[in-house]
Amino acid sequence: MFITFEGADGVGKTTQMELLRERLEAQGQEVLLTREPGGSPIAEKIRGLLLDRENDMDDMTEAYLYAAARADHVRRVILPALARGCVVLCDRYVDSSLAYQGFGREIGAQAVWEINRQAVGRCMPDRTYLMALGRQEAERRVRARGEMDRMESAGRAFAQRVDEGFALLAQRAPERIMVLDAAQPKEVLARLIAEDVAKLKTCPPDGR
Amino acid sequence: MFITFEGADGVGKTTQMELLRERLEAQGQEVLLTREPGGSPIAEKIRGLLLDRENDMDDMTEAYLYAAARADHVRRVILPALARGCVVLCDRYVDSSLAYQGFGREIGAQAVWEINRQAVGRCMPDRTYLMALGRQEAERRVRARGEMDRMESAGRAFAQRVDEGFALLAQRAPERIMVLDAAQPKEVLARLIAEDVAKLKTCPPDGR
Repeated sequence: MFITFEGADGVGKTTQMELLRERLEAQGQEVLLTREPGGSPIAEKIRGLLLDRENDMDDMTEAYLYAAARADHVRRVILPALARGCVVLCDRYVDSSLAYQGFGREIGAQAVWEINRQAVGRCMPDRTYLMALGRQEAERRVRARGEMDRMESAGRAFAQRVDEGFALLAQRAPERIMVLDAAQPKEVLARLIAEDVAKLKTCPPDGR
Repeated sequence: MFITFEGADGVGKTTQMELLRERLEAQGQEVLLTREPGGSPIAEKIRGLLLDRENDMDDMTEAYLYAAARADHVRRVILPALARGCVVLCDRYVDSSLAYQGFGREIGAQAVWEINRQAVGRCMPDRTYLMALGRQEAERRVRARGEMDRMESAGRAFAQRVDEGFALLAQRAPERIMVLDAAQPKEVLARLIAEDVAKLKTCPPDGR
């Protein structure tokens, strides 16, 4: 099973991934926790280029670099882990490209999808948890972490387009993307996610 | 006018670009000499990832990284230079992606073209000089230069597929790609190229 966590920075994706990992491992399930951009040696180097505030690049180059990292991550990490029976939990995936470059940078979701088509191949998530939080609260949490990276410092209007993009993507794929109110206590969120994963395991959405 | 130089490593692309630059500048023409991968700050950093022999990556990631570098180079360097009246001479361009990743890595030219479609946009060369040289002589010249980069050290079978790929691309686009026998003396090659460029200037191939 391939599960992705999406949403703006500061919404609590990492926390929920860790809680789900603990619960699945306690059930004897092998779990791989990974992230994008990154998750493989070359993808982590590409992540360095993308998040370094010193780097200035064309929006299209940004979209291609995320796809470049994804192609390696999918082929060398995610697909082999799924093949050996792991549940793969991934912090961000192609929905982030659609939201950040498609809507945030205004390249268009269709153009970004075309760039990503071969990087993703057939490796689409079985479930995506989109954690939604008010813009002000998300910004407060990111600021509280300290210094912001290149994407986090792209400004309020950009972040609002990203939020709207995520909401639109969820409307378009309701069978895959579950929207969660990230303002709820983390224990409540963890229970909602765990119940959904348990259902998925007995009855996968596409009959696999 | 946008002119690209293609062919295996060691065939003499840089020498011919320099000779053409000198000739055009002597005629009062502003010339931009550039190269791929590279030609802009972020593209040069991506070049570093691509050519570093320490880096191991999926073939698809390699194709995406070339496209990522190209998107920035096209939008920030090549198109602005063409817009201000420069003749742009570029050492490698999308034909190299088709030959090296499409044929050499055997991803397929169509798949590589699809990855590059948005990076290239409408920025196709007015003329491409494909410098063709026997494999043994090309290898001798590369070895004579010293240490080989990640692409140069991909092996004989890979290099042969690249050579065959270039030849096929030239057959498919004879109106754009002129094949030159790179074993000829450099002065002879320079004259052939200069005569062709002079013709192009008075009568561009697509009537521009």
